[in-house]
Amino acid sequence: MPEFASDIEIARAARKKPIQEIGARLGIPPEHLLPYGHDKAKVGQEFIAGLKDRPDGHLVLVTAINPTPAGEGKTTTTVGLGDGLAALGKNVAICIREASLGPCFGMKGGAAGGGHAQVVPMEDMNLHFTGDFHAITSAHNLLAAMLDNHVYWGNALDIDVRRVALRRVMDMNDRALRGIVTSLGGVANGFPRESGFDITVASEVMAILCLATDLSDLERRLGDIIVAWRRDRTPVYARDLKAEGAMTVLLKDAMQPNLVQTLENTPAFVHGGPFANIAHGCNSVMATTTALKLADFVVTEAGFGADLGAEKFFDIKCRKAGLKPAAAVVVATVRALKMNGGVAKADLGAENVDAVRAGCANLERHLNNVGRFGVPAVVAINHFTGDTEAEIAAVTDHVSQLGAKAVVCRHWADGSSGITDLASEVVALAEAGSADFTPLYPDEMPLFEKIETVAKKIYHAGDVTADAKVLNQLKEWEAQGYGHLPVCMAKTQYSFTTDPNHRGAPEGHVVPVREVRLSAGAGFVVAICGDIMTMPGLPSVPSAESIRLNDAGEVEGLF
Amino acid sequence: MPEFASDIEIARAARKKPIQEIGARLGIPPEHLLPYGHDKAKVGQEFIAGLKDRPDGHLVLVTAINPTPAGEGKTTTTVGLGDGLAALGKNVAICIREASLGPCFGMKGGAAGGGHAQVVPMEDMNLHFTGDFHAITSAHNLLAAMLDNHVYWGNALDIDVRRVALRRVMDMNDRALRGIVTSLGGVANGFPRESGFDITVASEVMAILCLATDLSDLERRLGDIIVAWRRDRTPVYARDLKAEGAMTVLLKDAMQPNLVQTLENTPAFVHGGPFANIAHGCNSVMATTTALKLADFVVTEAGFGADLGAEKFFDIKCRKAGLKPAAAVVVATVRALKMNGGVAKADLGAENVDAVRAGCANLERHLNNVGRFGVPAVVAINHFTGDTEAEIAAVTDHVSQLGAKAVVCRHWADGSSGITDLASEVVALAEAGSADFTPLYPDEMPLFEKIETVAKKIYHAGDVTADAKVLNQLKEWEAQGYGHLPVCMAKTQYSFTTDPNHRGAPEGHVVPVREVRLSAGAGFVVAICGDIMTMPGLPSVPSAESIRLNDAGEVEGLF
Repeated sequence: MPEFASDIEIARAARKKPIQEIGARLGIPPEHLLPYGHDKAKVGQEFIAGLKDRPDGHLVLVTAINPTPAGEGKTTTTVGLGDGLAALGKNVAICIREASLGPCFGMKGGAAGGGHAQVVPMEDMNLHFTGDFHAITSAHNLLAAMLDNHVYWGNALDIDVRRVALRRVMDMNDRALRGIVTSLGGVANGFPRESGFDITVASEVMAILCLATDLSDLERRLGDIIVAWRRDRTPVYARDLKAEGAMTVLLKDAMQPNLVQTLENTPAFVHGGPFANIAHGCNSVMATTTALKLADFVVTEAGFGADLGAEKFFDIKCRKAGLKPAAAVVVATVRALKMNGGVAKADLGAENVDAVRAGCANLERHLNNVGRFGVPAVVAINHFTGDTEAEIAAVTDHVSQLGAKAVVCRHWADGSSGITDLASEVVALAEAGSADFTPLYPDEMPLFEKIETVAKKIYHAGDVTADAKVLNQLKEWEAQGYGHLPVCMAKTQYSFTTDPNHRGAPEGHVVPVREVRLSAGAGFVVAICGDIMTMPGLPSVPSAESIRLNDAGEVEGLF
Repeated sequence: MPEFASDIEIARAARKKPIQEIGARLGIPPEHLLPYGHDKAKVGQEFIAGLKDRPDGHLVLVTAINPTPAGEGKTTTTVGLGDGLAALGKNVAICIREASLGPCFGMKGGAAGGGHAQVVPMEDMNLHFTGDFHAITSAHNLLAAMLDNHVYWGNALDIDVRRVALRRVMDMNDRALRGIVTSLGGVANGFPRESGFDITVASEVMAILCLATDLSDLERRLGDIIVAWRRDRTPVYARDLKAEGAMTVLLKDAMQPNLVQTLENTPAFVHGGPFANIAHGCNSVMATTTALKLADFVVTEAGFGADLGAEKFFDIKCRKAGLKPAAAVVVATVRALKMNGGVAKADLGAENVDAVRAGCANLERHLNNVGRFGVPAVVAINHFTGDTEAEIAAVTDHVSQLGAKAVVCRHWADGSSGITDLASEVVALAEAGSADFTPLYPDEMPLFEKIETVAKKIYHAGDVTADAKVLNQLKEWEAQGYGHLPVCMAKTQYSFTTDPNHRGAPEGHVVPVREVRLSAGAGFVVAICGDIMTMPGLPSVPSAESIRLNDAGEVEGLF
């Protein structure tokens, strides 16, 4: 191994154990593991159903400051912390999301962690993995085909084809499919209408798969999807098309959590991957609840920074699945704090203690926000080679003045031995039992007030604005019985405001709600506060151009 | 087991062996089997590469008379013959195609075989199986995304967007996607143009995967796909877009043959599934060549009747892969012969020896056609409960007058014990070594002459017509170096003519070639002689409406 090996070199040198051995660490008998090759497996539904009376382990959320181009290493820290807890002798499982195939062919993509804190097999996880996203694509597009087919054969449900909510999906970055007209070519092909494709991770089916507690809950939620509206504005559901049964059949394997391992052979569930803007951005409830039955410590993460990721993890996933997190880790890097303190990316190399101090305002905000949910938190300083002692001291000092701890972690370079301090602190926090999780707002709060609550309490906004159209829409949904749903904020991940360039800890800004969408199957109302892209495009030189199999049969160019 | 159990009841009662035991019957060590669950596996590329110096077993093709609504049972006979050969103590492997997901949600779909001659696990094979078709969908659509992306970023290759040959694909019956306009919505979404989706099995990538001999051949062929034409009519290839490497990476697992088993635990490779009209309709060359290295007898089949399926199997697959079939089985049923003899479906229940005799003209034609390729053939009469002794005698008499044998087979009811006679006859034919395989026409014959040769020698047509446009197109391709390719006839499977209602053995008809398409990567020229549907639709009451998981977690309504 060269001193500065790349992620892929480290991953290829991994001493993977057969997946049955990894399952055995969690007490899963081999007959309940459905292998996919020798290093991946799904955990059987029957085995999972049999666990329900067991006590739960401690749930630990890894979240982060606002992401910057400097990187914060949230997944790397999640994986490292899992290995660190295992090194302390704890029975541990990691829960992270699956990667989308689409972006891998655009920008170089998608390791699961980095350095000596990675989940393997890396190539598989960035390609088809166990086929879950393909199953979601099929289930979603079956529903879409059944909708157009229903209209074609006479439209007995009286669907207003101008008000079809459902688009189609593909796990590909393909801007040409964002806006299309379908059913061209004459009578045999149906009634032309405008539509389009989103990327699969943006599918409501993805969000549903990640929130469903079992196969019957999955089927019920799929039936609840609103596919269109009638002229009288009443909703048409997937169950009106009788689609939810076949969709469930398509998703029955995808609902089983995938088990893989870290470089240090710690069990890792990699399952589900909903968008962190128009959906809640967490791995599946199935994986998390299964892991909690099998391990004493479960380390998981949520998409983007704590303002979006942790808030949705708490207010949507934990609220709905009845999860009680025991502790949280807020990941920061000196480099990202410097950027939050006003330093440009090109100048990150130079020591700048003042900028680190200024950037700590962002960290402080996130730390306080996590505290609002009643979950004790520790700060992980994910160490980079160029960080100076003075810069690190600036962070630890700032955090200790807040009554919390900041721990330097070197898992990227050293694996579990570099993250023992953080692991010990997490054990202490969790075992102290001081957590008292409470969501930010109650179910019965009106929808717009929920949006305001998140914006004001978490983002520190001064005001929330919305057109009458948006406000009326929310009232209509409340009248239809959807008022109890949590809200899912779709906002830039780079700032507490809706301006991605506004770093640090801004206050008093205005959050405009442009549009609201009802995900009745997933069970949340999406509040769109900015431009949200649901189908990415490829760059001028996509990474696909350099991806190939080398003579040894290894994948080149994917990372 | 009830006396008349349904296919799915029989399949669920199967005593499946672990896939490692099935692999062991063919001498595949467990470490070279990549399991997908406990009853499916892919065979490793390295193991396959190591087989190349071994001698080949006997290749047996199962083909049939023209299909009718009465059914002929070609796949059932393929599976039954495999079991029958195994019962005789032969080392045998079956090679059949994978099922497409799309049609399963339209009409009740897709068992692999039937009765006591089935391949299992049936549910998986009709759902996602090992993900091959999803991988093909992804690879195809990546190419399409890269094409539109290339145009978006400046179109350096000077693609004429009016002459884009590549469409997108989805493994779904969705008529709304047949004709679409893409890239709507403004500058950020590209240049609007007409396009559409085909079903995945119609993708040239599918045909390529099924004809490629290894991963480098796959990559070369993918690069050869013509995606569009320039204004000067020169072709733009997938390799010009630098797409073939990433496509190969997406297909690397899909290229590995899938191993499953019959109800009697005979090894079965189920791999690839190209359309039998716009493509060649056979399982993959990888699976067949691998099976030939591992088994003494390999039983395979080709799509539709012998006029389309066997002809393409011989002239495309065997020619290109250097396969030498040892024997062929032409499957017929008394019922289907009656329909070919002019009986309507409603009247099939009554004995009608004259109609059987008249229908034998169709069987005779197919038997003679197979003989033209130098492959000795036997007729399998796939027995149905209502067949009378006199009807069966009419067939056996007719066939024996032709100097061949017709053997009654009861594998549907009795499994291997019902098909011992056919198995013995196949062994005798193959071991006699009388086969002397020759394709119908030489590579160097001009393209239109190849079409005429198939139409006149196989279909007994009097003439082949084509517009000057079609003839000029073929000449242009010959000038560009594609004249050596075989032709792939796209014609109705129900008749030797282009009229699906014209059963029996018509002669002297005219075959009009409406359109020709160049599949430069797959390596054939498609001659379209009729309406060819490349994206099916759903019926007014799709079977998807009744597909669901029952309380036992079993799939209902799929079969």
